[in-house]
Amino acid sequence: MGQKYTLAILGGTGNEGPGLALRWAKAGHTVIIGSREAEKAQRVAAGINAKLGAPLVSGMTNLEAAQACDVAVLTVPYAAQNALLETLKDVLRGKTLINVNVALNPPKVAQVYIPPEGSASEQAQAILGPDVDVVAAFQNVGAHTLEDADHPIECDVLVCGDKKAAKAIAIQLAGDLGTRGIDAGPLVNAKVVEGLTSILIGINIRYKVPGSGIRITGLP
Amino acid sequence: MGQKYTLAILGGTGNEGPGLALRWAKAGHTVIIGSREAEKAQRVAAGINAKLGAPLVSGMTNLEAAQACDVAVLTVPYAAQNALLETLKDVLRGKTLINVNVALNPPKVAQVYIPPEGSASEQAQAILGPDVDVVAAFQNVGAHTLEDADHPIECDVLVCGDKKAAKAIAIQLAGDLGTRGIDAGPLVNAKVVEGLTSILIGINIRYKVPGSGIRITGLP
Repeated sequence: MGQKYTLAILGGTGNEGPGLALRWAKAGHTVIIGSREAEKAQRVAAGINAKLGAPLVSGMTNLEAAQACDVAVLTVPYAAQNALLETLKDVLRGKTLINVNVALNPPKVAQVYIPPEGSASEQAQAILGPDVDVVAAFQNVGAHTLEDADHPIECDVLVCGDKKAAKAIAIQLAGDLGTRGIDAGPLVNAKVVEGLTSILIGINIRYKVPGSGIRITGLP
Repeated sequence: MGQKYTLAILGGTGNEGPGLALRWAKAGHTVIIGSREAEKAQRVAAGINAKLGAPLVSGMTNLEAAQACDVAVLTVPYAAQNALLETLKDVLRGKTLINVNVALNPPKVAQVYIPPEGSASEQAQAILGPDVDVVAAFQNVGAHTLEDADHPIECDVLVCGDKKAAKAIAIQLAGDLGTRGIDAGPLVNAKVVEGLTSILIGINIRYKVPGSGIRITGLP
């Protein structure tokens, strides 16, 4: 059994947040949904608790959630990331931030986009500075797959970051989702992991499947 | 049964060339190993023919091989790519070039490197111009895996390119290797497929395995 964390899912009322919250609460973590409005976060948390059959998930503003957590998980869309992180910079100091979010360039979301900063994850690290350990993870797991907590996730989680201890947290949290976390190297490698999401979106469209994913082969 | 091609493996005396040649010759294609020196190409071809038990593979200079082929497969190291392609620009006109080569930045080969052109594949297209259809493929299949022709390849082949017909050739050739080719979108997506090679190199080191690979899940 791994360590139990207080997790803040920032922007957690979107596509990925509820599925992550449901699965991590089931695994024994304390989960807080963060949102711009506390009420909306509480409403989404109540929906997740109904599925869980127990009041395990709470809802707060993103700022309160970031303050209360050990580990923050960022699931806001790329366009909203920078403004949110500027407001959380101080309260996240000394913590780990797991960025789930991907640099996409709508409407061409199936075309790989490398922003000037390299990736959404590298951009988050640049904004938050060296006192926050940013890790990229969970970018390739589709919302479709997360929602149904009884369904196994057929996708490995590639974890990129510059701090081994922070990557270990994300790798444990991947295991707690019922999938496998793999150390994929330094944070600069996040541009490939994020870009893979664009490739998977394209594969979903081209091959008419709801949620393609990736697996690393050749591991023990 | 798919179409049979005359394939020129340019720089085919290196790590990937012999394994690709062996498997494609077995699948019924006419295979030419290209090298700077015809003699070296012939020597490597003779070694492959000894394994095949039949003189199916020939050796030529890269220029002669590029002239003789229907489809060229580029397996020279990234640092040698531009100079070679400049000399082959004219003879490749109207043909498909499948680039196997990856933009790496030695000695940090496990760190994703995005060159100014985006990827080795995009750079090849820029040099060759619109009269050559460049496709990125086979970047994630390790030489280790290719060499042993009796061993199945546990790695999907992500195929990127801007021309559907050229991608279809690479997808067929992936099937002829005994693996699965998947349309991964336009050539700009090659930067992620090439970068994945750096991630796999890092995984091989970190997890002490000889050849990790990738599979796309969720496809029929």
